[in-house]
Amino acid sequence: MTKILNIAVDAMGGEGSPKKAIDGIIHHSKTAKNINYNVFGEEEEIKGLLKNLKGNNFKIFNTKEKILDTDSPLTAARKGKNSSMWKAIESVKSKESDIIISAGNTGALFVIAKMNLEMIENIDKPALSALWPNKSGMNVVLDLGANIECSEKNLTDFAIMGSSLFRSLFPKEQPKVALLNIGSEDIKGNEIIKGAHKILSEKKNNEFNFAGYIEGNNIMSGDVNVIVTDGFTGNIALKTAEGTANFIMKEVKDSMTSNLYGKVLSFLNLKNLKKVKDKLDPRLYNGAILIGLNSPVVKSHGSTDYIGFSNSLKVCEKIVNGNLIEKIKHNIIA
Amino acid sequence: MTKILNIAVDAMGGEGSPKKAIDGIIHHSKTAKNINYNVFGEEEEIKGLLKNLKGNNFKIFNTKEKILDTDSPLTAARKGKNSSMWKAIESVKSKESDIIISAGNTGALFVIAKMNLEMIENIDKPALSALWPNKSGMNVVLDLGANIECSEKNLTDFAIMGSSLFRSLFPKEQPKVALLNIGSEDIKGNEIIKGAHKILSEKKNNEFNFAGYIEGNNIMSGDVNVIVTDGFTGNIALKTAEGTANFIMKEVKDSMTSNLYGKVLSFLNLKNLKKVKDKLDPRLYNGAILIGLNSPVVKSHGSTDYIGFSNSLKVCEKIVNGNLIEKIKHNIIA
Repeated sequence: MTKILNIAVDAMGGEGSPKKAIDGIIHHSKTAKNINYNVFGEEEEIKGLLKNLKGNNFKIFNTKEKILDTDSPLTAARKGKNSSMWKAIESVKSKESDIIISAGNTGALFVIAKMNLEMIENIDKPALSALWPNKSGMNVVLDLGANIECSEKNLTDFAIMGSSLFRSLFPKEQPKVALLNIGSEDIKGNEIIKGAHKILSEKKNNEFNFAGYIEGNNIMSGDVNVIVTDGFTGNIALKTAEGTANFIMKEVKDSMTSNLYGKVLSFLNLKNLKKVKDKLDPRLYNGAILIGLNSPVVKSHGSTDYIGFSNSLKVCEKIVNGNLIEKIKHNIIA
Repeated sequence: MTKILNIAVDAMGGEGSPKKAIDGIIHHSKTAKNINYNVFGEEEEIKGLLKNLKGNNFKIFNTKEKILDTDSPLTAARKGKNSSMWKAIESVKSKESDIIISAGNTGALFVIAKMNLEMIENIDKPALSALWPNKSGMNVVLDLGANIECSEKNLTDFAIMGSSLFRSLFPKEQPKVALLNIGSEDIKGNEIIKGAHKILSEKKNNEFNFAGYIEGNNIMSGDVNVIVTDGFTGNIALKTAEGTANFIMKEVKDSMTSNLYGKVLSFLNLKNLKKVKDKLDPRLYNGAILIGLNSPVVKSHGSTDYIGFSNSLKVCEKIVNGNLIEKIKHNIIA
């Protein structure tokens, strides 16, 4: 018997939708097998974009409303069951789909998800997690903005959810988990971080190794695999890293091509330069994953293209095949 | 009448001291005028390192104790008046010096400074500030770790102190001040940030323009000049930026020279590549400034070389000549 994986796709969110979402599905479908895409959006438009999908199924659910990027979460929620986003989330609620993906309005997606999906038992708050490149591969970092203020229980839950996510994505590795702090010594940080440190140090488990504190300059060092922080700090860290990376890449490019001589040499070295760009291509670690609800919710970046969307579909596949939710339930501290 | 600027130098702190500090003074002295360096440390050792200082004076105060980088702030404070660090701070307390600089133990420096120097009236907490490169020059960012938790009054004070520091360093510019937050909309952030936003929006002044919220990805965009945050977030942001910059520079270097062809081309483009390195040279924005006490305390990075130390001496000069403390007193909200 072949197991079919059902992915609910909100096709109407983010720049260039629904074309981006449909092209993403077509691209993903070339390498993926046994997938059924449950696509929510304007049927006529989607049909026009659709081409042949080899070895996978594609089902369109016609919806009339769509959530705009400019809608407040409240306005979005009021549009109710008629929006493609709501319908897609309902599809995982009713177990027709295993996971939901959207490139739409982040705030709306999380509010509608929380309205429709139950929390995993013993988890108080869901967290927004993402992949972050490092020297030896990818980290999981969470929370990146879902919770401005967190308790020690929240941070401990994030450690467990993050390591379960990491194991779903990279099944061969036993993750090292660390708390983001302003120093590596035990006396550093606020009482909440110290409390989480104590709980994690004492927790016996076979799922991850607790590596203590990590500082901001070591997020990308590859020494740990899962980095835990509150949503305020995580969001600032992520965006600061993005800003710094863009700044440095631009400085490098500007300086190296600041004269004709440099321009010619850089042109000749284009292939090597492209390697950096390819390795750091944001589409490789596109999007974020809201974990803590009974079904994971995958948010593709609004401005990514179909390749990025397709990569997020791969993440959906890995999460379901890796039994993320079961892993979390097994490890969570009651 | 010529005004002499007195700088108290703790010569015994940081890697390669006292040689680094003395070489830094010699280097600084080549371009600076009318400076008197009050140098605290082991007299015999310092004398052996000393060469001719053109147009400036140099006075050695022999001290027997020195604070180690491994000393806890408490251990350091217990060494008391006999350490070079304490003596240097006492020298600004007694008005023999206008400002103090050290490349030693950061925690110890701040504890001993706070024990000896009074706070500026109506300021509750001192803040650790630093220069941060951006597209069009340099930002001032604070707090970078002195205060893990901050009130709205603290953040407001930081805005005033930071803009006063910016005006001392760059007298021609009217600074734009922003609060670091996880979104630019008014509803984003915690109650403390919103409270500080309200106070700063309502404050009428000629010293700075309040530009609202800024997100992490815009710290280096050059849109604002002073970025205000609590010490926990600021420390994580600064270190994350450092880590990201190192990561990207290494990736660029590795990729561009991954084969012989690339190596040759990169070698030929060395002069242009050096421009990036020069522009982003950490020695240019070396160290940090503790502001809020009756005298500013300048902390040079422990691992910087004599050029970095000399650049921090230049910062000392600008701060005193720019009347930083008077500026803060004039602008602070009672």
